[in-house]
Amino acid sequence: MKKFDINEDPHRRYNPLINEWVLVSPHRSKRPWQGQNETVISDSLPEYDPTCYLCPGNVRANGEVNPAYENAFVFENDFAALKQEEIAFEEDKKETFFKAQPERGISRVVCFSPKHNLTLPEMPVAAIENIIHTWQKEYTDLGTIDYINHVQIFENKGSVMGCSNPHPHGQIWAQSSLPTEVEKTQNNQKAYFDKHGTTLLQDYLQEELKLNERIVIENEHFVALVPFWAIWPYETMIISKRHFGKITDFTDEETTNFALTLKQLTTKYDNLFETSFPYSSGIHQAPTDGELHPEWQFHMHFYPPLLRSATVKKFMVGYEMMGESQRDITPEKSASVLKERPNVHYKNKL
Amino acid sequence: MKKFDINEDPHRRYNPLINEWVLVSPHRSKRPWQGQNETVISDSLPEYDPTCYLCPGNVRANGEVNPAYENAFVFENDFAALKQEEIAFEEDKKETFFKAQPERGISRVVCFSPKHNLTLPEMPVAAIENIIHTWQKEYTDLGTIDYINHVQIFENKGSVMGCSNPHPHGQIWAQSSLPTEVEKTQNNQKAYFDKHGTTLLQDYLQEELKLNERIVIENEHFVALVPFWAIWPYETMIISKRHFGKITDFTDEETTNFALTLKQLTTKYDNLFETSFPYSSGIHQAPTDGELHPEWQFHMHFYPPLLRSATVKKFMVGYEMMGESQRDITPEKSASVLKERPNVHYKNKL
Ligand SMILES: O=P(O)(O)O[C@H]1O[C@H](CO)[C@@H](O)[C@H](O)[C@H]1O
Ligand SMILES: O=P(O)(O)O[C@H]1O[C@H](CO)[C@@H](O)[C@H](O)[C@H]1O
Repeated sequence: MKKFDINEDPHRRYNPLINEWVLVSPHRSKRPWQGQNETVISDSLPEYDPTCYLCPGNVRANGEVNPAYENAFVFENDFAALKQEEIAFEEDKKETFFKAQPERGISRVVCFSPKHNLTLPEMPVAAIENIIHTWQKEYTDLGTIDYINHVQIFENKGSVMGCSNPHPHGQIWAQSSLPTEVEKTQNNQKAYFDKHGTTLLQDYLQEELKLNERIVIENEHFVALVPFWAIWPYETMIISKRHFGKITDFTDEETTNFALTLKQLTTKYDNLFETSFPYSSGIHQAPTDGELHPEWQFHMHFYPPLLRSATVKKFMVGYEMMGESQRDITPEKSASVLKERPNVHYKNKL
Repeated sequence: MKKFDINEDPHRRYNPLINEWVLVSPHRSKRPWQGQNETVISDSLPEYDPTCYLCPGNVRANGEVNPAYENAFVFENDFAALKQEEIAFEEDKKETFFKAQPERGISRVVCFSPKHNLTLPEMPVAAIENIIHTWQKEYTDLGTIDYINHVQIFENKGSVMGCSNPHPHGQIWAQSSLPTEVEKTQNNQKAYFDKHGTTLLQDYLQEELKLNERIVIENEHFVALVPFWAIWPYETMIISKRHFGKITDFTDEETTNFALTLKQLTTKYDNLFETSFPYSSGIHQAPTDGELHPEWQFHMHFYPPLLRSATVKKFMVGYEMMGESQRDITPEKSASVLKERPNVHYKNKL
């Protein structure tokens, strides 16, 4: 009988952060593709677009005028999924199939730069540091609000990821409940911490550094790696080498090195298919519920959909929705491909 | 303080099948859309396409020739995510971050019709009954194989759902493990059954029939409804009125009525935006592990992505990936919109 070869044989891998499995089919990356092609984002956007509602000085959908901002700029989402209004609600204690509860929160938009065409990989490190400072301020300001127990910082980049405006920006949704995925992550970190007295992700990081098979970037303070249990083709996670739970715990040096890691990682992404690489990214960190949360380890996820080229993405559909996430290329292969990509952006080569 | 109004205020709803929440933002459906537009599937495909690898008599990617089939036709997937080969593997019992296990299985393709352009809503009921019989045979044949413990029947329809060929077809992935989503569903059904001695979905169905707010189709044997906890804009679920766990438990009458329900539901979907409506669908039913599984209730999910028109879909991205699924239109609204759609296909009106 053939012996198990993780680089060749179909297998499942376990994700201890959310207690779920992923199906890995290494041999499958060779199948032909006749399906949907994505639209490539134009490489030649103007620095200022008079029709963009995020550019400085322009009018937004609700009639407000953006200031002539020079660094990261934050405003309240004009079409927020959450509202600040307090809603009277009495929970029905009896068992029911119709369990619902009002949810209170604040949604904000963070413009990364006044320049319509300047994405993270092309920004100077100082400008990325400025974005990090903005995230820190928002985490603190929002987190201090009495009813806000969780602050989700994220970015949807590229139209294929549902982003409706190429002007570089992210979002923050702050709310009273722990969102489903965060709650799973918290529960599993907590169980690990209670059992071992150490954090799941710090212990995992030590093992990954020893194996050195899935590391994409390493510097003094941060590591970017393809998790052993990654589901997206070029999924990565940034973990700090020091144990802390939230972005406001960064030292000045860590801020600089996190900015550098972000710049290098997104540059490698852009260089992969020589395109402005689409992804959703998001920071997972300690809730703002007033508890200490020693179990929490700050980390950032990147979920990029592209699989084979600038136009062919991985679809998480039928089997994945009904059954389980599935991937074709192994995380080890993805990591080595990303690692080899230059740290100089392809546009600057010309 | 304003009193909670589930039709207006942002809220979370609980899904007892998978023990997860969804964020509902009813007020948000008014926001403008400048993002990606999907390609509409052509309404005028030929009945036979010489370049299609699923049409009768044509050559497939691996060189095999399709027979001149007249009903549903099943073949082994040429680029299967799973392989049948048995792999030697010894599980490492010690705690590790690198938990992986080989996965054995069979992937099949089910062509629904020899006609390249004949989708479910346009098929005669008898042809859909033939597909159901094919699913029953596959569930039995695959389920009988010793190492196969789960048979996932599903369909990806439309290029926006990763389908690479418009020829009407679905897939079956049969494997040795319970996939993640199925395991969650099983665990929650089991806990409910152990506590109440009745099945979660039968009890839920009774409540839904009483309320009559989310029912889209009802006949003697089946109900199609928008679940209270639906995440996709026009998500539906078909549940049998009688308690049974698997598709092979259908009586002849149930087979006919299930075919009718499928035809009506997909017709309503097509009529919604007068387009061949994309979705992923899949059947959740008892595993084939040899156990009795009285906790299992047969049901079928439809996850369609379209939100506002034939070209604007809902994106499950940043917040949804990092935090929690989010929807704009309420399930009640979606159900009433679908219910009102005619049962006659828009193409036949002309
Ligand atoms: O098997 P297909 O149709 O080539 O592929 C499609 O369905 C599969 C199962 O849901 C997915 O894994 C693929 O991403 C999708 O493109
Ligand atoms: O808020 P935006 O950019 O308009 O919308 C985008 O991000 C949101 C948060 O991930 C999603 O709910 C939307 O589906 C997506 O289109």
